[in-house]
Amino acid sequence: MFHFTATYTDLYQLSMAQVYFNKNENQQAVFDYYFRNLPYKGGYAVFAGLEELLDIIETLRFSEADLEYLKSHDFEPAFLKYLKDFRFSGSIKSMAEGEVVFPNAPILEVEANLIEAQIIETILLNILNFQTLIATKASRIRNVAGNKTLLDFGLRRAQGPGGYYASRAAMVGGFDGSSNVVTGRDFGISISGTMAHAFVQSYDDELTAFRDFAKHRPKNCVLLVDTYDTLKSGVPNAITVAKEMEERDQKLLAIRLDSGDLAYLAKRSRKLLDDAGLNYVKIAASNQLDEYVIQSLQNQNAPIDIYGVGTNLVIGKPDGALDGVYKLAFANGKPRIKISESISKVTLPHKKQVFRVFTEDGTMVGADAVALEEEWHINRMHHPVEPFKNLVLTSLKQEPMLHPVMESGKRLNPKKSLQEIAAFSRKQVNALPDEYKRFDNPHIYKVGISTQLKQERDKLIEQHKE
Amino acid sequence: MFHFTATYTDLYQLSMAQVYFNKNENQQAVFDYYFRNLPYKGGYAVFAGLEELLDIIETLRFSEADLEYLKSHDFEPAFLKYLKDFRFSGSIKSMAEGEVVFPNAPILEVEANLIEAQIIETILLNILNFQTLIATKASRIRNVAGNKTLLDFGLRRAQGPGGYYASRAAMVGGFDGSSNVVTGRDFGISISGTMAHAFVQSYDDELTAFRDFAKHRPKNCVLLVDTYDTLKSGVPNAITVAKEMEERDQKLLAIRLDSGDLAYLAKRSRKLLDDAGLNYVKIAASNQLDEYVIQSLQNQNAPIDIYGVGTNLVIGKPDGALDGVYKLAFANGKPRIKISESISKVTLPHKKQVFRVFTEDGTMVGADAVALEEEWHINRMHHPVEPFKNLVLTSLKQEPMLHPVMESGKRLNPKKSLQEIAAFSRKQVNALPDEYKRFDNPHIYKVGISTQLKQERDKLIEQHKE
Repeated sequence: MFHFTATYTDLYQLSMAQVYFNKNENQQAVFDYYFRNLPYKGGYAVFAGLEELLDIIETLRFSEADLEYLKSHDFEPAFLKYLKDFRFSGSIKSMAEGEVVFPNAPILEVEANLIEAQIIETILLNILNFQTLIATKASRIRNVAGNKTLLDFGLRRAQGPGGYYASRAAMVGGFDGSSNVVTGRDFGISISGTMAHAFVQSYDDELTAFRDFAKHRPKNCVLLVDTYDTLKSGVPNAITVAKEMEERDQKLLAIRLDSGDLAYLAKRSRKLLDDAGLNYVKIAASNQLDEYVIQSLQNQNAPIDIYGVGTNLVIGKPDGALDGVYKLAFANGKPRIKISESISKVTLPHKKQVFRVFTEDGTMVGADAVALEEEWHINRMHHPVEPFKNLVLTSLKQEPMLHPVMESGKRLNPKKSLQEIAAFSRKQVNALPDEYKRFDNPHIYKVGISTQLKQERDKLIEQHKE
Repeated sequence: MFHFTATYTDLYQLSMAQVYFNKNENQQAVFDYYFRNLPYKGGYAVFAGLEELLDIIETLRFSEADLEYLKSHDFEPAFLKYLKDFRFSGSIKSMAEGEVVFPNAPILEVEANLIEAQIIETILLNILNFQTLIATKASRIRNVAGNKTLLDFGLRRAQGPGGYYASRAAMVGGFDGSSNVVTGRDFGISISGTMAHAFVQSYDDELTAFRDFAKHRPKNCVLLVDTYDTLKSGVPNAITVAKEMEERDQKLLAIRLDSGDLAYLAKRSRKLLDDAGLNYVKIAASNQLDEYVIQSLQNQNAPIDIYGVGTNLVIGKPDGALDGVYKLAFANGKPRIKISESISKVTLPHKKQVFRVFTEDGTMVGADAVALEEEWHINRMHHPVEPFKNLVLTSLKQEPMLHPVMESGKRLNPKKSLQEIAAFSRKQVNALPDEYKRFDNPHIYKVGISTQLKQERDKLIEQHKE
């Protein structure tokens, strides 16, 4: 639905680009995308947004309106002409969308000339940071919801058009469907919905409202039962309509609870439905749900079949942002580093590869080793900050995680469907040991650096000190 | 930049619409937009998004792709034909964009047939909730920043395309500019930017990087001084370049600090600049700023001229969402109400007007009275929940706040510029007494209901109890 134009960027990218353009020297550069802190005090994140991003980058252009606008911002005519013909022509290596990812290991690496690499920085961060934040939230919710149906109902409270990608990212993380119609159209998301309180209110009585709805929308019919009194009015009226539907060879799909004590109301509603011979009618629940509320409802054995999750999902409450960054690792023929008073914020130089470590039988060891690109087996992985902490990996299986996804500005593989990405993600999350998935003080996944990379980094730090 | 299609909505809006379509009776309805809780534990909010929303509603259509997609979702052909010709043809009354607003008083009222009113609900909430959240955050930051320059730097951490409207809303709330180029193009926002650490890193030394930048981007030139060592390297190199610029009759605009103790570094940098005769060179600061950090910096008299605010602004941290709702007040010729176990969640029936109360000399009294539309002066305003609390308003000035902005689907006034909206908002915020603007336990602005509205509401509650 959204078309991104190349001015969807920070002005400084264009200012820097103007300078690089004038210098006109070897400008091949490498940038790493990674984040520093896991969202939600969790033990992992789910990488999302990649397949959309590749499409966006492949087609990113400065429009006539962009160029006309930029004329008044002190860019030189030759540079504006360059922007007119701008195409991203670089290469990208990345982990797969849906992969479980951890702080401080590159998730994606851009290799391009400095101008192009800078122009795409903002949109790359904007797309990946947000979708990874939301996919991670969705994944946490899926982890506690078992095989219950999870629906995204958040569009009205989403951060404006951010809601479009929130719905997409929710599916990557394990949701089953969304109320957001346009994401059904564009991403093939299964869309669903019930009725609003306003629908019931617009009638003089609840029973007539239910009857009309069931008559005109008999398929996947869900009745909202809490407009007046859930147990005394809503559920009994829903039962009446369900029985009438049976006479027409139709089945009521579900009732929806949207207020009150959901565990109590679900149990009482279940009993009323079962006593009426309607054990096939499901119970949907919504109202400020998140992974903690759903965990509590599950622990109470609340007979809820469908959870509708809104605000807390689509805005990634309480964090609201992933702190992903895009850092220069190589430029003009040399490895590059950013010094910081805190060594934990010093960047890693050179083109790199990330190796995920497994035991012989394929179990995750809980370690990712960041290495130089040309390394192929890491014998020892060092803590990036603590000088004496390290891990011997000699006899362990190691899989490279960064794979080419774009070359010369063209994506290398057909776009994966959202369903494919979601299935992959679920497999990866399931393979991650439970200790990393618990909510309270999850086990810390180790991300270290190879001996060679450590030597390169420390050498550059020394050089800068001089 | 974004084109919203009419399927940017929740499926249930279309399901309900199908039912209303089949019923084909008098379906004139009135919906109120309001929120229940102020964001950031603050004392007021700044209403934003209206002028964009009116454009969106005026042009909202179902595209061919929408209709093709909806075919597979059990809608009847006659209804799909209706959607093909869909236009919003209703009326909207609203408070002005930029107005200071308070919980539980309608900010906007939609009068339309039920189908149209439901179809626009989701996008209305999506646009207004988010922009009001961000404009309010920006306004709080402006309140403590005095006349310092405030710039939005948040696009990379924004919630995907939500960043587009975040920049817009930041201006409504009092920001001066943004790094977000496309919002300059589309909203006339003043855009600005400096350089990234990557720019400095891409050179073998900082001084050459600064020199090149100043040479090719001399206008509004800002040098980022913390890549290696702010006081030992960054500021001295910036001073060298500033002096070289003077020889070319150019002036360095500012240096930027992006890490470390900003108050300390700003004071030390100011001294170095002043000692070099560069008292015109400004100091910009960024790095996880919000209204509390800026207040602290201001209290310390940190000599910072320009604040760059990112994540905390554009995601409306820590709330992330405004709980705005859209509630039915009138339908099919009758006032409508939603009953709740808690009277604070019972909705207000009928078409309404909101009166803001002032003393004779125009000072805000701190009270908004919600009344029936036909009332013109409120003698007594009742607490909406507490039965014995009320306020006599007889001798006070009262101004109606809801004014027609759209009739028969057409906006009544030309679109206001963002600058005009922002100026109006600042005037309104300035007129609000300080007690409502402080961060800790702000004074509670009173929102009550007129005697007539109370009687109507209570009568309907009684009827529903029977």
